[in-house]
Amino acid sequence: MYQLYYYPGNANLAPHILLEEIGVDYQLVLVERSKNEQKSAAYLKLNPAGRIPVLIDGELVLYESAAICLHLADRHAAAGLAPALGSAERAQFYKWLMYLTNTVQAEMLFYFYPERLADDAAAVAQVKAHAERRVGDMLELIEAELAAGAGPYLLGAHYRAVDAYLLMLCRWTRNMGHPARARPHLARFLDTVMARPATQRAYAAEGIAAPFY
Amino acid sequence: MYQLYYYPGNANLAPHILLEEIGVDYQLVLVERSKNEQKSAAYLKLNPAGRIPVLIDGELVLYESAAICLHLADRHAAAGLAPALGSAERAQFYKWLMYLTNTVQAEMLFYFYPERLADDAAAVAQVKAHAERRVGDMLELIEAELAAGAGPYLLGAHYRAVDAYLLMLCRWTRNMGHPARARPHLARFLDTVMARPATQRAYAAEGIAAPFY
Repeated sequence: MYQLYYYPGNANLAPHILLEEIGVDYQLVLVERSKNEQKSAAYLKLNPAGRIPVLIDGELVLYESAAICLHLADRHAAAGLAPALGSAERAQFYKWLMYLTNTVQAEMLFYFYPERLADDAAAVAQVKAHAERRVGDMLELIEAELAAGAGPYLLGAHYRAVDAYLLMLCRWTRNMGHPARARPHLARFLDTVMARPATQRAYAAEGIAAPFY
Repeated sequence: MYQLYYYPGNANLAPHILLEEIGVDYQLVLVERSKNEQKSAAYLKLNPAGRIPVLIDGELVLYESAAICLHLADRHAAAGLAPALGSAERAQFYKWLMYLTNTVQAEMLFYFYPERLADDAAAVAQVKAHAERRVGDMLELIEAELAAGAGPYLLGAHYRAVDAYLLMLCRWTRNMGHPARARPHLARFLDTVMARPATQRAYAAEGIAAPFY
């Protein structure tokens, strides 16, 4: 049985939703961030980067949320969470997952933790403000792609792992001045993904209260 | 025939090396960064994020360097650039590619372009210094993994797409105070990957002069 190390609403949310979409047995293991457990010696043995989540799959100990999503999609191909290997749609699926994790998610870290890149209060404020503006630009790119596409999902008619990932990242913008949901195509996308029973089960299991995104 | 939009030493270098490893026909298309061509209307139609590279594969227009690497590995499975679908090794391959692109590569952008997150000179200097220190910490994590592993490659005995990616990112640290090559396991890894004829052909085709990393 899979074990997913999580903290409510953290980067575990996307893999968690996928476990519910697949309908496989799994166990949630809370990492108590309030006690900084993700930096404990025991946790660093699972993930030397000290970040949440980790997935345990038998002998396999896997970190990096997007890698866990890819692994789950591959291991449960019948769930259709990723397009067929070698197809053009699979390539676009990879493209979106990369953009979401190395651009949108990476930038958001400096909105939430600007002190990682700056020392004094003035510089910290600059980093936070620029990161928020840049995330906004990235959301505009996604909004334009959703507007140009057939929808309702990021890659078109089929729900894929990237949709859970995008929902998770958009949730993280909910307290920004111009959050993801303020854009009409993103709002419709978020409503669609949130309406899925698997999404709702994962949110409920993590104890996430409204607003959901 | 594939077309790869490139600028010497940019994020095209990893997919370029993989094209040489595969031994398939391709054409390089220079994007003149000195003229900011990556932000031109024509290029933005290929990649709305305005970044290099783009791969053209028939009707498919693909951006995001790591996605291009995954696509090439999948399309040419016989080259062995990615482990078998659904395997534990494939999961670790994903993990490393994600870590390299969403953590190491993403952080490096703020070492090279700190002004994207700060306004005044003092804050810009802070961002650059923190990003360099943080990239150093990330390289220490990779060094420790290489030290613990069987080598000579990141995942062990077999050369994979992540190895070209890691070489590319390590090259970008060459002017840092404590570059990747200053760490013994990383140095041995870099020497091994650089010795491959495909790596050397890609470097030569891009006109990259020593130091190579």
